[in-house]
Amino acid sequence: MYKLLKTDKNCKARRGVVSTAHGDIQSPFFMPVGTNSSVKSLTFEDVNEIGAQIVLCNAYHLFLRPGLEVFEAAKGLHNFMSWQKPTLTDSGGYQVFSLAKLRKLQDDGVEFQSHIDGAYHFFTPEKVIDIEQSIGADMIMPLDVCAPYPCSRHEAEESVRLTTSWAKRARKYFLENRRSDRSQNLFAIIQGATYKDLRERSAQELLDIGFDAYAIGGVSVGEPVKDMFEALDWTMPFLPKDKQRYFMGIGLPDQIVKAVGEGIDMFDTCLPTRFGRHGTAFTAYGRIIVRNEEFKFDFTPIDPECDCLVCRRYSKSYIRHLLKLKEITGLKLVTYHNLYFYVNLMRKIRKAIEDDQYVAFANDFLEKYGSELRV
Amino acid sequence: MYKLLKTDKNCKARRGVVSTAHGDIQSPFFMPVGTNSSVKSLTFEDVNEIGAQIVLCNAYHLFLRPGLEVFEAAKGLHNFMSWQKPTLTDSGGYQVFSLAKLRKLQDDGVEFQSHIDGAYHFFTPEKVIDIEQSIGADMIMPLDVCAPYPCSRHEAEESVRLTTSWAKRARKYFLENRRSDRSQNLFAIIQGATYKDLRERSAQELLDIGFDAYAIGGVSVGEPVKDMFEALDWTMPFLPKDKQRYFMGIGLPDQIVKAVGEGIDMFDTCLPTRFGRHGTAFTAYGRIIVRNEEFKFDFTPIDPECDCLVCRRYSKSYIRHLLKLKEITGLKLVTYHNLYFYVNLMRKIRKAIEDDQYVAFANDFLEKYGSELRV
Repeated sequence: MYKLLKTDKNCKARRGVVSTAHGDIQSPFFMPVGTNSSVKSLTFEDVNEIGAQIVLCNAYHLFLRPGLEVFEAAKGLHNFMSWQKPTLTDSGGYQVFSLAKLRKLQDDGVEFQSHIDGAYHFFTPEKVIDIEQSIGADMIMPLDVCAPYPCSRHEAEESVRLTTSWAKRARKYFLENRRSDRSQNLFAIIQGATYKDLRERSAQELLDIGFDAYAIGGVSVGEPVKDMFEALDWTMPFLPKDKQRYFMGIGLPDQIVKAVGEGIDMFDTCLPTRFGRHGTAFTAYGRIIVRNEEFKFDFTPIDPECDCLVCRRYSKSYIRHLLKLKEITGLKLVTYHNLYFYVNLMRKIRKAIEDDQYVAFANDFLEKYGSELRV
Repeated sequence: MYKLLKTDKNCKARRGVVSTAHGDIQSPFFMPVGTNSSVKSLTFEDVNEIGAQIVLCNAYHLFLRPGLEVFEAAKGLHNFMSWQKPTLTDSGGYQVFSLAKLRKLQDDGVEFQSHIDGAYHFFTPEKVIDIEQSIGADMIMPLDVCAPYPCSRHEAEESVRLTTSWAKRARKYFLENRRSDRSQNLFAIIQGATYKDLRERSAQELLDIGFDAYAIGGVSVGEPVKDMFEALDWTMPFLPKDKQRYFMGIGLPDQIVKAVGEGIDMFDTCLPTRFGRHGTAFTAYGRIIVRNEEFKFDFTPIDPECDCLVCRRYSKSYIRHLLKLKEITGLKLVTYHNLYFYVNLMRKIRKAIEDDQYVAFANDFLEKYGSELRV
């Protein structure tokens, strides 16, 4: 599934390629978030034009609506949403933790109330595999227990214990119930919150079971950036070189640049699309709030260094006007640019690694962007 | 400005071409409504891809936001919104009538309160020309008085009297204050409500003044379809063959097909975009409500006879799912299809007139669409 092409001579950043039934993905890469099977405010023509290689959807959301019977009838997610490139579904572990009304953890699984209609559901590791097989993404995440921040040692230990136990069951069920009409790979999600030994225990236990790839979970849950990168540092030594590494829910552009320098291959976050809908744009010099008065007469593009379709055509003055009037087109334009900013950043990152120039590239980017992080 | 290319041998439908400083427009044509300088939920890439030849904006809205100083700084509407094809601005006469809070008609002009912040404004025919020159669309409408439906004979008479008086002043001011940095044509708007003699009086008075082109206004204000076409029938004999004819705010697809058969060249309505945002789609067989349960497992396109980008790629099942979840992408997809339906209908209409097949084409369309209208 993962092939390491090369590692930068001066740091741990790696260039690789991930093979799926829907094509190869050049890594490191960013996954636009399409929770409900659409990247908010964009069409798949847009997503493709931007150059995204993969889209991430959410099993929890898609299970609730439109429901699995629609995915079975459509012959899977790709056909349903008309996107024939790779996909990944998150398991719902994080959503049950963050969205559902009532969460009752049991050894067997988790009971929760739908955030939509309050209906009761019970997810087990096996049921989530069933759901994700029915949906049919190329890469799937198992049901895990995402500990909050801050969280007690006891809570973190429980999260690791259940995550390992459920991962084992998920793996077994996944292998014993493969569907001939689906070609999928199963990740493991490493937990352990902000506790070094628990992060190590979680990583070791999951490595011992053996998965197609590994994700670092329980990050980007409100913890300081320092803690986020500590979790990364503690975990990385355990991760095998021949499997891709996914830093879940990360993050801001400078955090991605930093994490690539540590050897991460996969990223996702709703920030480019969410910020886009609120009129905040990413630029090479940091974020700007496009709706601000200062841009009323500014006929230059959002980011003078960007060559996306929006920056080639539209001015800050025009986009600001649309945002002020809550015109849908305004938030679409910022979202498009933001997603391009992320996807294009990954393109530059891959090029820099190929040239063994990642450290210089990353630190130039970080300084210009106004970040305190360095590689 | 207008060149009549040919009239269908069997009816009054005409093929022509309208020349503007931003290119030619093949007529009959439809103008997508971009009130605030964007066609709601679409980008100009979309509008262009759909094949629209012109966009209609609203002087009343653009005067209020972003304000004329922005259009002066941007060097006009086309540059501001990055659309270099033809444009038309409506004067605000209709908006003052339909949107503004308080409307005080005087012989000199109209006082009203902005629907946004309640601020008082006073529009005169001259001021509206100033506004539209500042905005800089290729075709501009003068300030008129749009009578409501139903309306008394007295009210209709007043509307005709003021509309003529203001049109005369607008024309004079427009000719005496031409700007070297704008190339524009001024229409007249014929009023008269549902009164035959008033329609005739209005048309004759405006013809006597002489304008670049003529619009039939005061229609699509809630009157029965029969009254709409009566207003058209009464007015048409007055309209010169060598000027284009604009049926303002019309209408539903079958109404457009019928009006083309009477010799109309220009149309606008917010229906394709507004219906799109509410999940209602136009098809060759009439309208469908895409969010309906019946389409949950329907993996066919919105309109099986449509070759638009949306119908080539997405299913009713998928779009319904997005609409149910209020995903922006859902309403964008229906809007895109709907606008394509209108623009493509005009393409077919032009072809049918060229082939002298308009009557057969129109009646086939109307029957299939489920309309009671016939040409």
